[in-house]
Amino acid sequence: MAQLRIALAQTNPTVGDLSANADRLISWTREAAGRGAHLVVFTEMFLTGYPVEDLVLRTSFVEASIRTLDEVARRLADEGLGELPVVVGYVDRANLAPRVGQPKGAPLDAAALLHRGEVVTRTAKHHLPNYGVFDEYRYFVRGDRLPIFRLHGVDVAIAVCEDLWQEGGPVAVVGQAGAGLLISPNASPYEKEKDDVRLELCARRAREAGCALVYVNQVGGQDELVFDGDSIVVDASGELVARAGQFQEELLIVDLDDLPVSDAEPGTYPYDAGDGSTITVERLVLSDEPVAPYPAQQATIAPRLDTHAEVYAALVLAVRDYVAKNGFDSVILGLSGGIDSALTATIASDAIGPSRVHVVLMPSRYSSDHSLTDAQELVRRQGVHSRVVPIAEIVNAYEKEIELSGLAAENLQARVRGMLLMGLSNQHGHLVLTTGNKSELATGYSTLYGDSAGGFAPIKDVPKTMVWELAKWRNANTLPGFLLDAERPIPENSITKEPSAELRPDQRDTDSLPPYEVLDRLLDDYVEKDMGSQELIAAGHDPDLVARVIRLVDLAEYKRRQYPPGPKITPKNFGRDRRLPITNRWRETT
Amino acid sequence: MAQLRIALAQTNPTVGDLSANADRLISWTREAAGRGAHLVVFTEMFLTGYPVEDLVLRTSFVEASIRTLDEVARRLADEGLGELPVVVGYVDRANLAPRVGQPKGAPLDAAALLHRGEVVTRTAKHHLPNYGVFDEYRYFVRGDRLPIFRLHGVDVAIAVCEDLWQEGGPVAVVGQAGAGLLISPNASPYEKEKDDVRLELCARRAREAGCALVYVNQVGGQDELVFDGDSIVVDASGELVARAGQFQEELLIVDLDDLPVSDAEPGTYPYDAGDGSTITVERLVLSDEPVAPYPAQQATIAPRLDTHAEVYAALVLAVRDYVAKNGFDSVILGLSGGIDSALTATIASDAIGPSRVHVVLMPSRYSSDHSLTDAQELVRRQGVHSRVVPIAEIVNAYEKEIELSGLAAENLQARVRGMLLMGLSNQHGHLVLTTGNKSELATGYSTLYGDSAGGFAPIKDVPKTMVWELAKWRNANTLPGFLLDAERPIPENSITKEPSAELRPDQRDTDSLPPYEVLDRLLDDYVEKDMGSQELIAAGHDPDLVARVIRLVDLAEYKRRQYPPGPKITPKNFGRDRRLPITNRWRETT
Repeated sequence: MAQLRIALAQTNPTVGDLSANADRLISWTREAAGRGAHLVVFTEMFLTGYPVEDLVLRTSFVEASIRTLDEVARRLADEGLGELPVVVGYVDRANLAPRVGQPKGAPLDAAALLHRGEVVTRTAKHHLPNYGVFDEYRYFVRGDRLPIFRLHGVDVAIAVCEDLWQEGGPVAVVGQAGAGLLISPNASPYEKEKDDVRLELCARRAREAGCALVYVNQVGGQDELVFDGDSIVVDASGELVARAGQFQEELLIVDLDDLPVSDAEPGTYPYDAGDGSTITVERLVLSDEPVAPYPAQQATIAPRLDTHAEVYAALVLAVRDYVAKNGFDSVILGLSGGIDSALTATIASDAIGPSRVHVVLMPSRYSSDHSLTDAQELVRRQGVHSRVVPIAEIVNAYEKEIELSGLAAENLQARVRGMLLMGLSNQHGHLVLTTGNKSELATGYSTLYGDSAGGFAPIKDVPKTMVWELAKWRNANTLPGFLLDAERPIPENSITKEPSAELRPDQRDTDSLPPYEVLDRLLDDYVEKDMGSQELIAAGHDPDLVARVIRLVDLAEYKRRQYPPGPKITPKNFGRDRRLPITNRWRETT
Repeated sequence: MAQLRIALAQTNPTVGDLSANADRLISWTREAAGRGAHLVVFTEMFLTGYPVEDLVLRTSFVEASIRTLDEVARRLADEGLGELPVVVGYVDRANLAPRVGQPKGAPLDAAALLHRGEVVTRTAKHHLPNYGVFDEYRYFVRGDRLPIFRLHGVDVAIAVCEDLWQEGGPVAVVGQAGAGLLISPNASPYEKEKDDVRLELCARRAREAGCALVYVNQVGGQDELVFDGDSIVVDASGELVARAGQFQEELLIVDLDDLPVSDAEPGTYPYDAGDGSTITVERLVLSDEPVAPYPAQQATIAPRLDTHAEVYAALVLAVRDYVAKNGFDSVILGLSGGIDSALTATIASDAIGPSRVHVVLMPSRYSSDHSLTDAQELVRRQGVHSRVVPIAEIVNAYEKEIELSGLAAENLQARVRGMLLMGLSNQHGHLVLTTGNKSELATGYSTLYGDSAGGFAPIKDVPKTMVWELAKWRNANTLPGFLLDAERPIPENSITKEPSAELRPDQRDTDSLPPYEVLDRLLDDYVEKDMGSQELIAAGHDPDLVARVIRLVDLAEYKRRQYPPGPKITPKNFGRDRRLPITNRWRETT
C-alpha cells in the first residue's frame, strides 16, 4: 500500500484569458508544492476557461490553447516546479479530416499531464453532454484514449467531467484495466440542491472503477452559469474523504493512504468501453517507488451551506464575476421600494461593496409615498450612492407627441426608467442590473426595453416566493466574503408590503397574476418538471389557472429571449434550455 | 421497367399548427390525386413544422404529433384518398429507457408511409445535424430503420434530409440493398448560393444509391430561417429531371419512366451502414403490378433566380411569414430617409402590401433636410401610411433630468425613436421592424434599445454593400407575388447619398467605420470564412483595420444577442452559429 498527497485546485479561471489562467496555474502549483503535494489537479478546460462556446471553432484560439499548454509545462520546470506532476484541462485538436457537420478543426475537451517541462500524455472527454446548458456535439469530437500513469507506485487514471455521468466509457474501462486512483477535472455548474447527486455519483463511480476518486470542480461566475466548486474526494468504497467549500477558490489538500501499488506493464491496450466504442488505455510510468511513509494530515470536509445560503452565495458570486470579468467598476439599478430591486441592490452590495453600487429612485405620478421612503431607507442602511429622477415630465413629453393608453401607457413609464438607467450607464460606465424575478419573467409580466433593459439580471432565475425568502435570510445572516456590512440591510416594509408595479392607480400584481405561492408551484411543475396540461390538472392545479398560466408562459418566450444574461440556479430556466419557436401555433392547453 | 407519377408537395407548414398542417396535407393530396399521382411526398416534419426547438421535449407535443399522424391517415381514407400512398414527416418517439443526456422521451425526426387509412411503416433520420443552425443532438435520437416499399412493382426507399448529406448510413444501405427510387423529405434552409451544392449532392447520392432520387423541400419563413423550396428530381445517373420554383408553394408533378421492377423478398434485413452502425432494411409490398403504360407529362424545370432576386425574395417571404404566423396585421418602422429603412419598408410593402405598412418620420435637431424629403418621397411612391413625430422635445425632457454627452447623448436619440415605435406598436398592434443591416450589427454600430428595438429585423443578415445592390435591383425588377405595385419604389437619393446616423452635427458613418466596401470584404473573411487575424493580414487586409474590426465585432457580441430575430441568408450569421461568451478575455488580435 502507498500514500499520495493530492492537491485539488478548485479555481476560478477567466474564459479566454489564457495568460492569466497560466499564471494562476503556476502560482497554485507553487503553493501545492509548498504544502508537500505529490500531484496537483486543475479543473476541466482550466487554461481556456469554460464554457468557451463558439470561440472553440476558431482555429487560432485552439492553437493558442495548445501553445499555452506547452509554455506552461516549460515554465513549471523553469521555476523549479517540474518534479511535481500537474493535470490540467485545456482545448486540443483531433486532426481529423474535415467533413460536413463536424466542428471545424475537430476540437477536443482535453486534459494533459505535465511533468519535468513536458506534456507527458493527453486525453479528452469521451462522453459529450448535449442537454440543458451543454452544447458539446456542436463544439467537440469525442476522445478515445485513457491514460493511466504510475506515480510513486500508484496507477492514476484521468477521466474528464461528463465521463463520470454516463454509463460505459472511461470509468467502465478503469474498472476493467485496474487503477489505484481516478482523477476527474470538472466544470460542473451549480444547480439548487444538486450537491447530493454529485456525491452519490462520485461514490458510485469510485466503486465501479474500484479505486479512490478525486473530483475537482471549477468555481466562479461565467455569464449565465455559476460554478460552485464543491470538489470531492471519495475512497474506493465510496466513503467521503474530503470536500472543498462552495463558491470560493480553495486548494484542497488530501492525503490518501492505502492506495494499491501496481506493477502493470506500460504500453497501450484496447478495451471495449461498453457503449459501442473502443477506448485505448495508455499505461506509463512517472515513478515506481512509493513515497516514504509520512503522517497524514486530517482532511477537510467543508460543511454544506443550507439552500438559502447556497442560492444567495451563488447570486453574489455571479454578480461579482460578471462585473469583474467584463471590466466594469460599478453597477446601477432602479430602486422602486419593492422587494425585487431591494434584493438585487443587496446582492450587488455584497458582491462588490456598497460604494460601487448606484441606485436611482424614479418616482412617477402613480408611485405611493412608501415607495420613495422604503427605497431611501435601504440607501441609508447600506450606504449605496443614490439619486432621485422623477419621470413625470419625460412621460408627458412623449404623450404630447403620441397618444398612449392602457398597457401601452404603462409600458412607456417602465421604458422611460430603462432609458434613464441606460443613459447614466453610457455616461458614467456603470453596468445596469435589471431587477426582474423568474415569476415575472416567466409570465411576461415585465416591459420589453423597460424594466428588462440592462446588462445583467441577477435574480432572473429566482421565483418571487424565493425572493422574499432570500431577503429574510439575508436580513438574518451573512457569509464570509460578503462586502456589505449592515444590520438587516433590507427594510422590513419592502419585504412585507403587497407587490405592485405602480404603473397605474392602485395597481396590484394580483390584478394580473395569481398569488405568487400558487403561481410559483405551477411554474415549477410546468417548467422544471415539464408536465403537460393534463398532468398539471391531475397534480391538483386549478384547470383555468393552468390554461391561463401556460398561455402566458408560452407567449412570453419572445420577451425572455431579449432578456439580459443572469445566473441559473435551477436545472431548467428560460434561457438556452427552454427555447420555443417564436412563430409557434401549438398550445399545451389545446 | 415501370412508370410512376410522383407528386412533390413543396409546402409551407406552420410550426405547432398540427391541425392546419393536417388539413393542408389532405387538400394537397386531393390535388395530387386529381393530377393522377401514384405517390405524394411531403417535407420533413411537415405535420409539426420545422424547426420545433424545445417543443419536442414536451411529451404532450410528441403525443399530439403521433396522434395527428394516425388521424390524418384515417381521414385520407374517409375522404376517398386512401389508395394514394403518402409519405410525410412528423415527430415520433423511440421509447428508449430514460438516461442522463438523452432528450426526454427520445424523440425521432420521423417519416411515415400512409396507405388505406393506416400508417404502414415508419422511419427516422439517422444522421443528426448539430452545426450551424442545427441542434439535433439536443432534440432527437437517431433512427436505424430503412423502409423500402414496393409501389406498382418499384421499390421505393425513404431517407430523411441530413441522411443525404453524410457519408455512410441510409444512402449507402440503399446502394447495397437495391431500390428503384429514393425519396427524401427535407427541411433545408435557404443559404445564398447554396443551390448548386444541393443539386450536386442529389446527383451524387442518386449515383451512390443506384436509383432516381426525389428531394422535397419545405418552403416558407420560420423565425430566423427561411426555406426556399427548390425541390429536385434526378435520375439514377444524376441527371436533373425536374425542379420546383424557389420561395413558393408548389405541387411538382413528375413522371418517372424506366424505373426497375423488383421481386425482392419482403422481410427485415440488417446492413452494415458503413458508419459504425447497423441499419435494418424493412422490405414491404403495397402493390406488385406496374401501372399500365401512359404518356408521360413534360417535367417542369423551374428557372433559377439570380443572386439578388433570390436574396430579395427570401427577405420578402421571411417578413410575410413572420407577420402572418405571429398573428400580426400590420408593421411599423422608422423611416429616416436613408437606405436601410427605405429597403426595409420596400421589403415590407412587397411582403404584405403598402396598405399594411406604417412608417414614422422622426426628425431630430441633427436631421438634414433631405432626410425628411427623401422619406416623404418614398411614402409618395409606395403609398404606405406615414406620420411625422419630432423627437426634440422628448430628448429635451430627458436632458433636463440627467446630463448626457457624447455617445450617451447619441444613444438617447436612437432610444427615444425606438420607444416611440414600441409605444405605437403596443397601442395599435403593429409589429415593429428594425432596419439595421449586418455590417452595422456586426461592428456594434447601433444602439441597444434604440434602433435595435423591435420584433423582426428583415435585413440583419444583409451587409451594407448588398443593401445598396438590393435597392438598385428592386428599382429595376419585380417578381410575381410581390404586393407593391410601384415604379422605382426607392428614391434615388436614398441610394446615392452618403450614409449617416445623424445623431450629431455632420456625422458620417465613415467617422467610425471604414468604407463599407472594405468593411464588408473583411467581415466576410472574418465571419463567414472564420479566418484568424494572421490569415486576414495574409489575405491582404490592412493590419490596423483587421485589429480594429475584430475588436469591434467581438465586443459587439452582447448587443447582437439582444437583437430581434431576422432571416438568415448566409451560412454563418451572428446569431446561433456565432456565439461567443460575453465574459471573454481572448482577443483574436492578441
